[in-house]
Amino acid sequence: MSGRLYVIGTGPGNPSQMTPEAQAAAAQATEFFGYGPYVDRLSLQPGQVRHVSDNREELARAKAALERAAAGATVCVVSGGDPGVFAMAAAVCEAIDNGPDTWREIDLVVVPGITAMLAVAARIGAPLGHDFCAISLSDNLKPWNIIEKRLLLAADAGLVIALYNPISKARPWQLGSAFEILRTVLPSETPVIFGRAAGRPDEQIAVFSLGSAEASAADMATCVIIGSAETRVISRGTRPDLVYTPRFAAGKAT
Amino acid sequence: MSGRLYVIGTGPGNPSQMTPEAQAAAAQATEFFGYGPYVDRLSLQPGQVRHVSDNREELARAKAALERAAAGATVCVVSGGDPGVFAMAAAVCEAIDNGPDTWREIDLVVVPGITAMLAVAARIGAPLGHDFCAISLSDNLKPWNIIEKRLLLAADAGLVIALYNPISKARPWQLGSAFEILRTVLPSETPVIFGRAAGRPDEQIAVFSLGSAEASAADMATCVIIGSAETRVISRGTRPDLVYTPRFAAGKAT
Repeated sequence: MSGRLYVIGTGPGNPSQMTPEAQAAAAQATEFFGYGPYVDRLSLQPGQVRHVSDNREELARAKAALERAAAGATVCVVSGGDPGVFAMAAAVCEAIDNGPDTWREIDLVVVPGITAMLAVAARIGAPLGHDFCAISLSDNLKPWNIIEKRLLLAADAGLVIALYNPISKARPWQLGSAFEILRTVLPSETPVIFGRAAGRPDEQIAVFSLGSAEASAADMATCVIIGSAETRVISRGTRPDLVYTPRFAAGKAT
Repeated sequence: MSGRLYVIGTGPGNPSQMTPEAQAAAAQATEFFGYGPYVDRLSLQPGQVRHVSDNREELARAKAALERAAAGATVCVVSGGDPGVFAMAAAVCEAIDNGPDTWREIDLVVVPGITAMLAVAARIGAPLGHDFCAISLSDNLKPWNIIEKRLLLAADAGLVIALYNPISKARPWQLGSAFEILRTVLPSETPVIFGRAAGRPDEQIAVFSLGSAEASAADMATCVIIGSAETRVISRGTRPDLVYTPRFAAGKAT
């Protein structure tokens, strides 16, 4: 008798940005699998069991959760942000795709959440107000030459670019290299937003130009948003600048 | 004395997918501006005033809301989904950018929400599990040749493509044309998801191949997600198929 497997997103960390749907799913589960800091965002009750593991063990975590759900448990896999964006929903699907038939009978329920780029964008204005893309800068899971190609094509297409997993101790040079690549095709004054812990007490949001952006301003929890040639900055005197990308593109007015 | 302007996202329509942060913002505002069906998602109290307008009057609505906030009111502009994704946050920023200086003094608070592509993706698995883009198919605000170029470059880059505003009575041919363009560069068996009203009682989620997808299956409330060459379908017998895009790309394993 198969159980149920929830895959939920907690949002970026501010409890008020986690949906009631995700809260309700967490309330029903008895076993929780996830990266410790994400599971810590839930207020678990006695009898709700935590299985925490490192952030780089997604597939092993997915398999462990599926085994428990296949045994009949109500299980909750916890992602930060949205579980479908560079997070656990794909790892769970990969495990099902390559696992025993019994895993296909599990009632899989993916519950969306506020992903980092939306939370960061909200704090600065509307940089994702027109066509955009989300690219993971991690070359653990794809070759660097594919990332280079995607950055160049995305910039050529006029898409605003949200970079996830921009930098880590094991991947120190990739973000700087991405900036160098994009400087060859985008104007030096293109706005670049570094957003960290959006909506949390330790929030840090900063805006640079592409010409002056330095990778060292980011860490692994930063979402970096690089504007298109259409992206604009509004100076507001006493209030922080706003950054937005107009809804219309060259050649059309409102 | 300037007031405050909230720009909130209600999510796709299921009340359990609207964040407590958005609910709290709505509770504080006294005047509401938005497309009627989105404002209807809020449970307004006596004394909270509705100003509803058509979905194609974003800039006029933004200006009206800013005028009231500049006069000292606590105002809430309501978007469906996320206000920063093809929605009101960019329209408000455009209005501020081109408006009187007093509008720059308003306390602008953008509150993120679950955007359609995340809600649709959650219902089918994890199609946005790797690099992806969001493109509006409306040529009201940009020339069609830019849209064509973006589709081709996005597909060439290997990005999964989420299409917003795919079709309407005034724009009947664009989605069919987008499929034709993408068929020239993507395999015929590439999964295409049509997601409408995700998470609501009237939800409709369907999966086709790019070769067989017909634009007539969409309406203006549909989000269409077109896979990359890496996107996979999992058959599950009695349960609906899952669609996901693996976290890794060709050349790297987990």
